[in-house]
Amino acid sequence: MGKYGGAKTRTTVCLSDGAIFLAGAFMSLTLVWSYFSLFSPSFTFTFNGLRHGGEPVQCSGLNMQLDPSEPGFYDDPDLSYSIEKSITNWDEKRHEWFKSHPSFKPGSENRILMVTGSQSSPCKNPIGDHLLLRCFKNKVDYARIHGHEIFYSNALLHPKMNSYWAKLPVVKAAMLAHPEAEWIWWVDSDAIFTDMEFKPPLHRYRQHNLVVHGWPNIIYDKPSWTALNAGVFLIRNCQWSMDLIDTWKSMGPVSPDYKKWGPIQRSIFKDKLFPESDDQTALIYLLYKHKELYYPKIYLEGEYYLQGYWIGVVDGFANVTERYLEMEREDDTLRRRHAEKVSERYGAFREERFLKGEFGGRGSRRRAFVTHFTGCQPCSGDHNPSYDGDTCWNEMIRALNFADNQVMRVYGHVHSDLSKTSPLQPLPFDYPNEAW
Amino acid sequence: MGKYGGAKTRTTVCLSDGAIFLAGAFMSLTLVWSYFSLFSPSFTFTFNGLRHGGEPVQCSGLNMQLDPSEPGFYDDPDLSYSIEKSITNWDEKRHEWFKSHPSFKPGSENRILMVTGSQSSPCKNPIGDHLLLRCFKNKVDYARIHGHEIFYSNALLHPKMNSYWAKLPVVKAAMLAHPEAEWIWWVDSDAIFTDMEFKPPLHRYRQHNLVVHGWPNIIYDKPSWTALNAGVFLIRNCQWSMDLIDTWKSMGPVSPDYKKWGPIQRSIFKDKLFPESDDQTALIYLLYKHKELYYPKIYLEGEYYLQGYWIGVVDGFANVTERYLEMEREDDTLRRRHAEKVSERYGAFREERFLKGEFGGRGSRRRAFVTHFTGCQPCSGDHNPSYDGDTCWNEMIRALNFADNQVMRVYGHVHSDLSKTSPLQPLPFDYPNEAW
Repeated sequence: MGKYGGAKTRTTVCLSDGAIFLAGAFMSLTLVWSYFSLFSPSFTFTFNGLRHGGEPVQCSGLNMQLDPSEPGFYDDPDLSYSIEKSITNWDEKRHEWFKSHPSFKPGSENRILMVTGSQSSPCKNPIGDHLLLRCFKNKVDYARIHGHEIFYSNALLHPKMNSYWAKLPVVKAAMLAHPEAEWIWWVDSDAIFTDMEFKPPLHRYRQHNLVVHGWPNIIYDKPSWTALNAGVFLIRNCQWSMDLIDTWKSMGPVSPDYKKWGPIQRSIFKDKLFPESDDQTALIYLLYKHKELYYPKIYLEGEYYLQGYWIGVVDGFANVTERYLEMEREDDTLRRRHAEKVSERYGAFREERFLKGEFGGRGSRRRAFVTHFTGCQPCSGDHNPSYDGDTCWNEMIRALNFADNQVMRVYGHVHSDLSKTSPLQPLPFDYPNEAW
Repeated sequence: MGKYGGAKTRTTVCLSDGAIFLAGAFMSLTLVWSYFSLFSPSFTFTFNGLRHGGEPVQCSGLNMQLDPSEPGFYDDPDLSYSIEKSITNWDEKRHEWFKSHPSFKPGSENRILMVTGSQSSPCKNPIGDHLLLRCFKNKVDYARIHGHEIFYSNALLHPKMNSYWAKLPVVKAAMLAHPEAEWIWWVDSDAIFTDMEFKPPLHRYRQHNLVVHGWPNIIYDKPSWTALNAGVFLIRNCQWSMDLIDTWKSMGPVSPDYKKWGPIQRSIFKDKLFPESDDQTALIYLLYKHKELYYPKIYLEGEYYLQGYWIGVVDGFANVTERYLEMEREDDTLRRRHAEKVSERYGAFREERFLKGEFGGRGSRRRAFVTHFTGCQPCSGDHNPSYDGDTCWNEMIRALNFADNQVMRVYGHVHSDLSKTSPLQPLPFDYPNEAW
């Protein structure tokens, strides 16, 4: 090795060293970037502490301050929120919206917006608005526990689409205003969540766009207007659903053909209650008359009470309460106190350990998921005459307190008696293990 | 260069190449990891599409299914949710909770839980529950738009702490049940959000633990029981606040000393309305008597209507509406339709372009942030006799519709008249640019 040869070798090696080092750095960064791009096309990460003089950066994962100026579907003058106008290419429009609002994509597959509502004027029934208020609180509690958004409508979006038809314009407008939501969950004002832990098995509905509580045989074998209940449903935020709403509403008061539909429905569904066309019978009619179009996409859920007629449910509250307390006496995990925000962990634990997907309909010993006070008409007070008005209101309060016990648990208090709303009792540590 | 010398150099160089390459890779990965650790100690990233047979992984950023089995503060038998018991070391307890629930850390600095409520029994005023229902919807709308959680209380957590004292046990229990929340925002049932875009400037309160609307001179120069309003406040979820609540409640009905506080408060605040000790006067009393303890930590906010007395506000609705429409006629950005979830972007734009931190109190031409119908008593109907009951209810409805216009905008509809709740009118594209 000559002197010059050695020196030249050293310089060459040094330059190469630097290049190789950088190559290594570059390669690993590329690998990391590729990994994240592959497994999370819109991976978000959050910064903590970077401040620019004002508020810290919003860090919920969702970027609520970003709305790019590039035109999207909202900028199309032809897009209308009205029930009178159709929507086209809604799937593509939502898809584009997610591309320009990527922070909303993660978790979007099961994102739910709950929608409910009631009339715009005070209830005729003196206790009506009080019950509506409590029923709304009940829904807000369920939504908060499970991370759902909720919207309450108390104004008609179309003057003709009133009464039970009022939900269609609201659901449609909500779909447009919430492209980030995959499901709109309509829940009647008189439906009460009585199992705060239960979550609808959305994976079961992957191929469907509408989920209602109902039974196919009561459509196809022995048609009845009670074959399903249109007071509680999950509707997927997609073009198929927009088309369904268009067809559905064409049997409603906004349609020029409205009047013909009452007789048509009554001719098929002999037990139909209202003479004029109603949204529930109209939906069953579509399934009946156009089975090939609708049956594949509408899930008739009968395995749990997506909505359960209150008559079969309220007598069971005491037994069910005792059964669930027994589970808690048996397993200290269920007695463990926790933040409300991690309640789902304990609901999942109970399901896994004690319930294992147990049937949740009539005769079940599960908590009814949703107890629906159909026939009670809390607002008008014009309840089905076959029951006592007071029975309706008293049972609604028991159902509300039954549900509230599951909520107030994480606030350290319960109702000692389902008929007694206030005051609450403080819970001892490790309840219900210690007698009290 | 001899043969063997050259060969040995090549092998050595090759091994060195590999080592240098790996060194470069390792260094860059270390830098990336350090960067994220430094700026986001618990950075979260979300996966899309990884399924394990059932539901996709919850991807909101918050992991609601994780509650580690290692004991935390909830597992301490001495922790009580009751207003009668003190909490200690709450800051440390929350800190530990975040360590075991890291997904909740990002964004926690400004996370808000709104808390409101009303009595457990139906209102005496026939329109009372209807107004409460609408006021609750109003709060749910505001919370949804800004990503806040909300909890409604309609049961006393302590039988003695009723009426205006009922909020303290609820706020405390909420603090314990929601360690992820930095602020609890108590809002009276008769307070209505009339600026859906406005966000309290939380950075202003970095050094404070309680924020109320009020003026120091009305405490220290000319003591009045109206120096601040305890019907709307932000309270930080921390030990200082727990201590404040302990002291505050010691002047309330749960305290053995309760009866002495009425006379003490009246001796200082000559215009005090109720003979017995009330929560508002009690708070002012603490500021008055123990200024050095409380004044540094309680922010008396007078620059905007954290709550604004309705009398000075409701006459301005028409003018304010027109002013804001004028902004929208002027700037097409404000006319642009968008998903509800990105409304904050447009509120920030309006603030920046037209309002620039403009004063928001009496005489202001801003929308009042919160319009508080103090003196109206919508539930009992026992309003301040100096005004007409009907005026109260009519103005509450106007305020509710004024607010609802800001909400329904993104659903494509508005109230044509503030006194008319239903039906709504559909909005034309590019409203309010086209005359309609």
